[in-house]
Amino acid sequence: MDQHKRFLEACVSIVGANGVITDPSLQESFLREWRRRKVGRALAVICPSNTEEVSSIVRLCHENHISIVPQGGNTGLVYGGIPDESGNAIVLSLRKLNRIREIDPQNNAITVEAGCILQTIQEHAADHDRLFPLSLASEGSCTIGGNLSTNAGGTAVLRYGNTRELCLGLEIVTADGRIWNGLKQLRKDNTGYDLRDLFIGAEGTLGVITAAVMKLFPKTKHQICAFVAVEDLSQSVQFLNFLQQRFNENLTAFEIMNAFSLELVARAFPHLQIPQLQKSPFYILAEISSNADVAHLNGEIENELSQALEAGLVIDVVVTQNINQAQSCWQIRESISEAQARHGKNIKHDISLPISSVPDFVEQCDQALQRYVPKCRLVTFGHLGDGNLHYNVSAPPEVTPDDFLKQQKPINHIVHQLVHQFNGSISAEHGIGTLKKEELRLYKSELEIEMMQQIKKALDPFQIMNPGKIF
Amino acid sequence: MDQHKRFLEACVSIVGANGVITDPSLQESFLREWRRRKVGRALAVICPSNTEEVSSIVRLCHENHISIVPQGGNTGLVYGGIPDESGNAIVLSLRKLNRIREIDPQNNAITVEAGCILQTIQEHAADHDRLFPLSLASEGSCTIGGNLSTNAGGTAVLRYGNTRELCLGLEIVTADGRIWNGLKQLRKDNTGYDLRDLFIGAEGTLGVITAAVMKLFPKTKHQICAFVAVEDLSQSVQFLNFLQQRFNENLTAFEIMNAFSLELVARAFPHLQIPQLQKSPFYILAEISSNADVAHLNGEIENELSQALEAGLVIDVVVTQNINQAQSCWQIRESISEAQARHGKNIKHDISLPISSVPDFVEQCDQALQRYVPKCRLVTFGHLGDGNLHYNVSAPPEVTPDDFLKQQKPINHIVHQLVHQFNGSISAEHGIGTLKKEELRLYKSELEIEMMQQIKKALDPFQIMNPGKIF
Repeated sequence: MDQHKRFLEACVSIVGANGVITDPSLQESFLREWRRRKVGRALAVICPSNTEEVSSIVRLCHENHISIVPQGGNTGLVYGGIPDESGNAIVLSLRKLNRIREIDPQNNAITVEAGCILQTIQEHAADHDRLFPLSLASEGSCTIGGNLSTNAGGTAVLRYGNTRELCLGLEIVTADGRIWNGLKQLRKDNTGYDLRDLFIGAEGTLGVITAAVMKLFPKTKHQICAFVAVEDLSQSVQFLNFLQQRFNENLTAFEIMNAFSLELVARAFPHLQIPQLQKSPFYILAEISSNADVAHLNGEIENELSQALEAGLVIDVVVTQNINQAQSCWQIRESISEAQARHGKNIKHDISLPISSVPDFVEQCDQALQRYVPKCRLVTFGHLGDGNLHYNVSAPPEVTPDDFLKQQKPINHIVHQLVHQFNGSISAEHGIGTLKKEELRLYKSELEIEMMQQIKKALDPFQIMNPGKIF
Repeated sequence: MDQHKRFLEACVSIVGANGVITDPSLQESFLREWRRRKVGRALAVICPSNTEEVSSIVRLCHENHISIVPQGGNTGLVYGGIPDESGNAIVLSLRKLNRIREIDPQNNAITVEAGCILQTIQEHAADHDRLFPLSLASEGSCTIGGNLSTNAGGTAVLRYGNTRELCLGLEIVTADGRIWNGLKQLRKDNTGYDLRDLFIGAEGTLGVITAAVMKLFPKTKHQICAFVAVEDLSQSVQFLNFLQQRFNENLTAFEIMNAFSLELVARAFPHLQIPQLQKSPFYILAEISSNADVAHLNGEIENELSQALEAGLVIDVVVTQNINQAQSCWQIRESISEAQARHGKNIKHDISLPISSVPDFVEQCDQALQRYVPKCRLVTFGHLGDGNLHYNVSAPPEVTPDDFLKQQKPINHIVHQLVHQFNGSISAEHGIGTLKKEELRLYKSELEIEMMQQIKKALDPFQIMNPGKIF
């Protein structure tokens, strides 16, 4: 206890008394997962205000062999940002590191601290007539440091890539408390190993991201959406290829929703006007963005979609005529998560597959699940353009969600086994944290895990960085 | 000697007698740098035919502590693919691993072995109505394994990224001879550390890339080029921003050439028709690509460029009217390297900078060089859209190139010091190899080099993978 007391006093001397939270009631929001599914304990929650303070705190932990759980907005979905129940670790909250250090519109780059809220960065970019394209449901509260540590995805990946692809440089506090200034603003730099991409997606297990240089893009003025009914998933993939061929990178989103997803949205949000298309098992929301002459673009889209309709590539289609209509299409898509929550808990999967394998996977997986739980219902939606499905299983009509949830493990296993057979990923967007670490061992080769562990040992020899996560 | 003899016999038992080259005359093309600037020696050149053979050879080297220099097309520019003069290493040629294993046009992915020639991959993609966008001068002889190991750049980076951004998965033989199958065909996969990007750009110092999954794209039908005269580099950067704002990702190239570059081209290749624009210090070749209605696109480009001209953003401009004219613009740009070679050797730099810093850097660097070597002449050209300049210094009129080359070291130092001050990179595209490893120590932080060395030690504990390169 004395050692802990001395440690906390040393923390206070670095970040001040306000920066060391030991009162359980004040710690609470840092220790529990935001959906209240899991609560951990901590020696203290430490809130440094700048990189030098982060460095001093980490050095102190290094010297005292005290574990560190870095935390951003605490919006993660795999328990990667909260401590375990031992109470031996500190939570290192990066939220006070929330300055935008620099924006260089000519170079299309912005330098931000780890604790910046994603939406703040989007807005700051917009104020300078630029687009920061990363966009996801929690953008009002997640931080860029968390986005980087989990390589967040979202709705703009088809055109702009994951968070990894949006990052030019990082500032890191290493596991022994040194500061690495890797804040390069370069599009090309072939001078040694790609340390940047090693820290991105490492879920805080290799070091602490304290700042980053992110890419900006020209704003896109016009967004036109098509809401499309398709016969099946094979048609969806063909339609994706068709639009990519016609519109290249101007195709900025290609989202899929099965009929049951839309049924849930209609039930939960009757005021939303879902386009009245011919009944079909799947619907597509495709978005095309451009700064070119909007009237001409609209004509091109109408023309191409008429061709698709005539060729039997799609069943029915409606094209938005203004930004309000486009936004209301997106609102439908983005209401699915909440609509299924209101319907009752279901068993979720965040998977990705080679796009060409999605139709066969879904057919086989639906069948396997029906064999195991007859009449279970699938809420299948997601970013088909990236091969990323949110493939969620709802209880059969006569079974309560709580009873159904008891089958989570075998159902996860059915889905993930098949994902593995199709060379897919059991975590497309959300990471591993502690939620999927046991399953990771089933699907990753021993050699790959061994290489990851060797790197972990090399960069964090005392194993103090976010212990128990990923491995 | 006996040990070496036994080792070579074991190699023969793995790859056959034809796969073990010990005859010096047959070894020669594997041992010398292609411009004949450097020649190494090797115990043998080993040519396996498949991944299993690579694995067996590497395991043998691991057991015998024999160094391995992986080699692709041997077209590198920094001596990264040839052995040193000790004669203790083997050259591991990957050229026989030249199968295209799979192409999946629906998933826009192609799986290729490391020894595939870049142009072969481009052609195979085109046969399937797809684009593999990586494009560089040596594409007829370089291999994809080499492209990946050096993270090659080229002319399509502005739109499609470096080789790193084009890769979805890798197959690796580790330093102890095990095979890691990381041949994922996924756009999203957040399941642990990004090992793929660690091996990419590692110049063969961490393991051997034996195969890769690369991204494909829809073909672009129309390429329209603008050849533009600009007043100075500030105007060039503003003009880049202007085109990005108007055409987003349809702007597929933005290349700069100073007046002296074009003068050399005109002298060396009088048959090339260089567009007759108003005299100016810099010229831009901008390319816009699209599958949209080409007549409309042409109109838009003409319209936007007229506006740029009226606003004084550019001095003079000509827009190509057909694919032949566009190709002839590119021929001018691509003739610069050969034109300067015919003019006489010069001192080359492959640098990158934040795009907004390019004007100040070039102004200050030109001045510093004039102070050091009055009347030296700059051949400044390159991928301004990526902030990547080929900034080459030619002898003053009265000095012979050979005399001038004696000043290579101090001139490199002047340029790279200033690059460092502007937070640029001393190797944008070409890598480190042995050519730049001493300079790397001047400009990389000790901490970054230490982290790189820790990773090297973790993945290659006997230090047999391409020793002496990078470090």
